[in-house]
Amino acid sequence: MIKQELENRIAAAVQKVRESNPMAPSITNFVTINFVANAQIAVGGAAAMVFMPDEAERIAQMDGAMYVNVGTLMPSHRDVMLHVAKKLREEQKPWVLDPVAIGIGSMRTEILHRFKEEKPSIIRGNPSEILALAGLWELEGGTRASTVRGVDSTDPVENAREAAVALARWTGGAVAVSGVVDLVTDGELVVYSHGGSHFMERITGAGCALGGVCAVYASCADPFMAALTATQAFNLAGKRAGEASRGPGSFEGNFLDELYLATPEEVAANPFQMETEEVLV
Amino acid sequence: MIKQELENRIAAAVQKVRESNPMAPSITNFVTINFVANAQIAVGGAAAMVFMPDEAERIAQMDGAMYVNVGTLMPSHRDVMLHVAKKLREEQKPWVLDPVAIGIGSMRTEILHRFKEEKPSIIRGNPSEILALAGLWELEGGTRASTVRGVDSTDPVENAREAAVALARWTGGAVAVSGVVDLVTDGELVVYSHGGSHFMERITGAGCALGGVCAVYASCADPFMAALTATQAFNLAGKRAGEASRGPGSFEGNFLDELYLATPEEVAANPFQMETEEVLV
Amino acid sequence: MIKQELENRIAAAVQKVRESNPMAPSITNFVTINFVANAQIAVGGAAAMVFMPDEAERIAQMDGAMYVNVGTLMPSHRDVMLHVAKKLREEQKPWVLDPVAIGIGSMRTEILHRFKEEKPSIIRGNPSEILALAGLWELEGGTRASTVRGVDSTDPVENAREAAVALARWTGGAVAVSGVVDLVTDGELVVYSHGGSHFMERITGAGCALGGVCAVYASCADPFMAALTATQAFNLAGKRAGEASRGPGSFEGNFLDELYLATPEEVAANPFQMETEEVLV
Repeated sequence: MIKQELENRIAAAVQKVRESNPMAPSITNFVTINFVANAQIAVGGAAAMVFMPDEAERIAQMDGAMYVNVGTLMPSHRDVMLHVAKKLREEQKPWVLDPVAIGIGSMRTEILHRFKEEKPSIIRGNPSEILALAGLWELEGGTRASTVRGVDSTDPVENAREAAVALARWTGGAVAVSGVVDLVTDGELVVYSHGGSHFMERITGAGCALGGVCAVYASCADPFMAALTATQAFNLAGKRAGEASRGPGSFEGNFLDELYLATPEEVAANPFQMETEEVLV
Repeated sequence: MIKQELENRIAAAVQKVRESNPMAPSITNFVTINFVANAQIAVGGAAAMVFMPDEAERIAQMDGAMYVNVGTLMPSHRDVMLHVAKKLREEQKPWVLDPVAIGIGSMRTEILHRFKEEKPSIIRGNPSEILALAGLWELEGGTRASTVRGVDSTDPVENAREAAVALARWTGGAVAVSGVVDLVTDGELVVYSHGGSHFMERITGAGCALGGVCAVYASCADPFMAALTATQAFNLAGKRAGEASRGPGSFEGNFLDELYLATPEEVAANPFQMETEEVLV
Repeated sequence: MIKQELENRIAAAVQKVRESNPMAPSITNFVTINFVANAQIAVGGAAAMVFMPDEAERIAQMDGAMYVNVGTLMPSHRDVMLHVAKKLREEQKPWVLDPVAIGIGSMRTEILHRFKEEKPSIIRGNPSEILALAGLWELEGGTRASTVRGVDSTDPVENAREAAVALARWTGGAVAVSGVVDLVTDGELVVYSHGGSHFMERITGAGCALGGVCAVYASCADPFMAALTATQAFNLAGKRAGEASRGPGSFEGNFLDELYLATPEEVAANPFQMETEEVLV
């Protein structure tokens, strides 16, 4: 795999989503649910959020990949999440896991522990979450004691490299780790994507929206290419929006505009590097 | 009824809401709940969202009309929705039904089926939802097999004309069908309203917000005039905001600004036509 | 306490939050949950929203103060709210209560009644809510019959002065009453803060966001200074954003930008007056 081939595949995924408008249903948290939907729509996908087991099962069979985010759990979330993950696994449908705030609460821990066997196609998280998930699943590179502080990360992305690779090898899918530089791996290839804006840490939901958009691209591309394409789109849109914004309020609107306006070629050309390569800007 | 009379009534409804600040409480979905509230406030109404049966009953008695949107159901939604619809019907209070994602899930189907007897004053939906609801209620023009794909419509508005008329005749109220051109009917008169923006399909919640604003106007006008006034306001604000926006992120803010700024005369003058008439721009 | 000392402490609180990024977890309503989080982040804090009792207990122990807003209750809210308030009281952790829509529904009334003994460090509400809470708790200046209309206030801020002082004396903390002019008291000192914008009444969530930001500052300052600092920051950001906005849609983004951009000195210099003083602009 050479870099040019990755760029071609990124452009193709952006284009295919624009043409086919795939629906990527979600079970996601109440804080950023609107932003997730708007980001999914901005890149050309369609959104549908559900919280009932039979609805999740039905909608997961429709077309695209599903996004499961374990933020803001309520008592009824346990059933719907475990039910849909089992169905997705049985039917070999791609799905994206966002292990938000792993380590806080017994239900979250149980759900995330049981997801090990359902093997999510893409896992997206910040470094602390990726480390903690690898730890919970007893994989290499993980940490036993979570250092997650709510939704914030306390670790740099490099620290989560081994855990990310181990998670991707376990699931056979891909892992995307969000940081100042983002890491995407399928367990063999490791790619670093550059760009973004400090404002992405100054609004709630940039990570959740990235997870939702990973699911949109996973309808039209394999897990690794989906995770990489979503990450590239976010880094490009974040960089452009950041340069045009006075603060986090204007950034959020500008970011959705830039996600919507970015062409396939521009997303592909956003700076990234394969491990051992020099970054080409 | 001549067109000038409709225009006068539209302007009067816009004006009356601005003066009286009616509260239109909602039971609505988690994705667009904030946008619904902000749209209701922008046109001069007040918002209050509830999820407990006794709260819904209490607040429904306060002043305005209620908005019930069946998106993002959780287990406790069944009781609150059936309870409040029954009370609204008993007390002859106006209410607006948004049959989001009809056909997905057994609880949604049960709730929507039982709403047939509670006769919502206004039904707002996209063409696929209107066709499916008429089908579920076994009225003319309905489809037995839902073609709803999540929250998106797969049918043009003209296809839902017969279903919309049948639903309005059944309820004795009004039906608003959202599309490139919007259709509003009381079962006799059919009106087409023009305007809007392609960006209304590129954000989540334009339809939900329209339903919520229908409820605001239904506090001060009959169901047909309320549905028509809300539709006109959305088409005007959508058109203006669309022309001023780079993408969906800036559109959302601009749209709320234009809803807020539109005068009664401007909302009345937005292009619409009564069936058999030529459109007057 | 002279005014200069208050200004110094306000600037110090703004600065300390920027430097220490305290997490202020919330149990809050679904309508404005995103705006609360974004406002908390804009001033330099971190947000985490929870709805499960063990998660709330865990996260309340982490660092900062907790924000509890009783809007949009669902059946499971009773347990989590009563549980966490009891723990917060036992562990002497600061917390902020927002008695939204007090008087509507039996569960809300029960929760708010039981919060009397848990003595929230800061109570934030509009005049009608403050009057009704003092009434529910049988304190001086309260009203027995709630005049709350959903989330809107029907009373001017001056009418709630006695109730606010009585509530602050009961809890030993502070009370912030939101109006055209805002009142903040610790039961002895009464301060009025000026500024803001009429657009703060034209969007949903300005009050909730203020409550959430009170919790951020309560991580780094005593309840009275936290409530006053948050109120000053909102009045400054509201004034600046209001002058730059065409309508409520652009206001919301501009407001978050201004919250983010305001310096410690500017927040301290926003006009306020101690009771019996002249306002110094």
